Amino acid sequence: MIRIALDAMGGDNAPDVEVEGSLQALAEHPPWSIQVLLVGRRADIEESLARHGQPPDRIPIVDAPEVVGMAEKPLAAVRGKPKSSIAVGLGLQKRGEADAFISAGNTGAVMAASTLLLGLHPGVDRAAIGALFPTSSKPVLVIDVGANVDCSARELYGFAHIGAVYARDVLGRPEPVVGLLNIGEEEEKGNSAVKEAFPLLKDSQGFRFVGNVEGRDILRAECDVIVCDGFVGNAVLKFYESVARLFRGLLEREMEPDVLESPGARRVFKVLDYSEYGGAPLLGIRGVSIICHGSSPPNAIKNAIRVAAQAVRSHLSQHIGAEFAGDGAVA
Amino acid sequence: MIRIALDAMGGDNAPDVEVEGSLQALAEHPPWSIQVLLVGRRADIEESLARHGQPPDRIPIVDAPEVVGMAEKPLAAVRGKPKSSIAVGLGLQKRGEADAFISAGNTGAVMAASTLLLGLHPGVDRAAIGALFPTSSKPVLVIDVGANVDCSARELYGFAHIGAVYARDVLGRPEPVVGLLNIGEEEEKGNSAVKEAFPLLKDSQGFRFVGNVEGRDILRAECDVIVCDGFVGNAVLKFYESVARLFRGLLEREMEPDVLESPGARRVFKVLDYSEYGGAPLLGIRGVSIICHGSSPPNAIKNAIRVAAQAVRSHLSQHIGAEFAGDGAVA
Repeated sequence: MIRIALDAMGGDNAPDVEVEGSLQALAEHPPWSIQVLLVGRRADIEESLARHGQPPDRIPIVDAPEVVGMAEKPLAAVRGKPKSSIAVGLGLQKRGEADAFISAGNTGAVMAASTLLLGLHPGVDRAAIGALFPTSSKPVLVIDVGANVDCSARELYGFAHIGAVYARDVLGRPEPVVGLLNIGEEEEKGNSAVKEAFPLLKDSQGFRFVGNVEGRDILRAECDVIVCDGFVGNAVLKFYESVARLFRGLLEREMEPDVLESPGARRVFKVLDYSEYGGAPLLGIRGVSIICHGSSPPNAIKNAIRVAAQAVRSHLSQHIGAEFAGDGAVA
Repeated sequence: MIRIALDAMGGDNAPDVEVEGSLQALAEHPPWSIQVLLVGRRADIEESLARHGQPPDRIPIVDAPEVVGMAEKPLAAVRGKPKSSIAVGLGLQKRGEADAFISAGNTGAVMAASTLLLGLHPGVDRAAIGALFPTSSKPVLVIDVGANVDCSARELYGFAHIGAVYARDVLGRPEPVVGLLNIGEEEEKGNSAVKEAFPLLKDSQGFRFVGNVEGRDILRAECDVIVCDGFVGNAVLKFYESVARLFRGLLEREMEPDVLESPGARRVFKVLDYSEYGGAPLLGIRGVSIICHGSSPPNAIKNAIRVAAQAVRSHLSQHIGAEFAGDGAVA
């Protein structure tokens, strides 16, 4: 049984979205396979369960009276609110009472609390957020998308290894192909960090490094993992989300309603729908922590639960730890 | 009469695309308003004119026997091939025999040659490439998109001023709104360069600085100019081009042919069509130099000619020079 602690107070429409997403997830998984623990203000969660026509004990609740606001400073919030749903939810994992944590709350606070409470695997310099980019074929993991800026070559190198383990364990790609995001394909291109990272990556084990890739190559899906500084990854990720919205808006403005309702149009929208991809994992920590958009719909929470369960089942965190320790270690 | 030197040997389908684009431009402008000078191998250009059913003297040719390849090292190419179409075309402008230069050739070589031959305006630290991003309303200038990586705060600050002049002169936005691309809206977010650039920009004259903007804000078109390091700008620009292709591909796969031929679909594709936007200007140099995609269709060349003429007519380069000199100078 995989036990997933879900921050019921995160996100713009908490706890209803979290309750709804949990119910959807429970309906899709056999009852012996996963358990969802709703972490947050008990009364709020029980009211939400009632709104969904559920008894108050339908899903176990772990009471956490404090709530971290979306605009609060991460470190101050983590230190000042030890009874927040974020701190309590991660505390369950730290004590071995849960296997994974999911939150659509304050991203910075989830990152800070995950790193502080669970710690990093030895040898991992910085935890990184990986995001799946939808393409017309398979999704591509871009790492980092915002946990780190001003990354060193060494850190980029670490992201490649972390991302490769994720690709193997969660995406089912046994020999991941890794590219380094750059402004040109030639080895001598780029800023100082990527120029230095290139030779480190060229000599790596455990994945196939295909060299520099450009912004236009990400969606070709020839790579399983694209490595970049969190500044550029964040810019591209958020840009992608907005382009998908722009496209949708353009189609809605220019096309006939019956066209928009067609099965083909639905398939196009589905590819572009981020909620299909279920949150972005914080990787490199000793445990499983998944960050969802504040605006996540229930479907995104349901998918994050699926991804978290897959991460636990595949021993993702342990494999990342092993990648950085022992004989086959990241040098 | 505005005289535009066009590199007839640049681009993947030179010189036919350049000849075709020039003919389209000449058909759209009154004969007294612009002159296009085709720079390149005379015999090749004359043959192309003949293929277009034109007499060899239909468009003036400036012979340039050497050609810079797309894969050549920029500086070596500029120094080693003084009779290339790039060097000869820019030489015309240097000697006052042309007012602008356009090339779909080797971007690095065009940048290097433009900077070396025309020079920078006093006070400009680095020339920058501005690219127009299509949105569902007005286009947005993103600067820099690849001329500079590892930018300092000072350089980002310079890009904002250069971009603001471009927005006033070429986009007709008398009070440009400028945003700084970052990973969050708060002033303390970001890498060290943008954190340092923020206070410099906050105290700027000549445009309205709206603070940090995120990747998702670019296409909202609430800013006229988005300032960023050339590394991140290049990644986002190339990514955008590829998303447009992905999206087109998805529609073609999923929608019925008659839907794709509908006027609405055509309007959607037109918004997403880069060739409408006519190349990316290299800004900060003493003169006008416009860089087009190697894969530019004739339509893109035609539009680059229009943009170049507008830049000359509005005294863009002189205004950028004035922004960095004298009393109202970029401090």
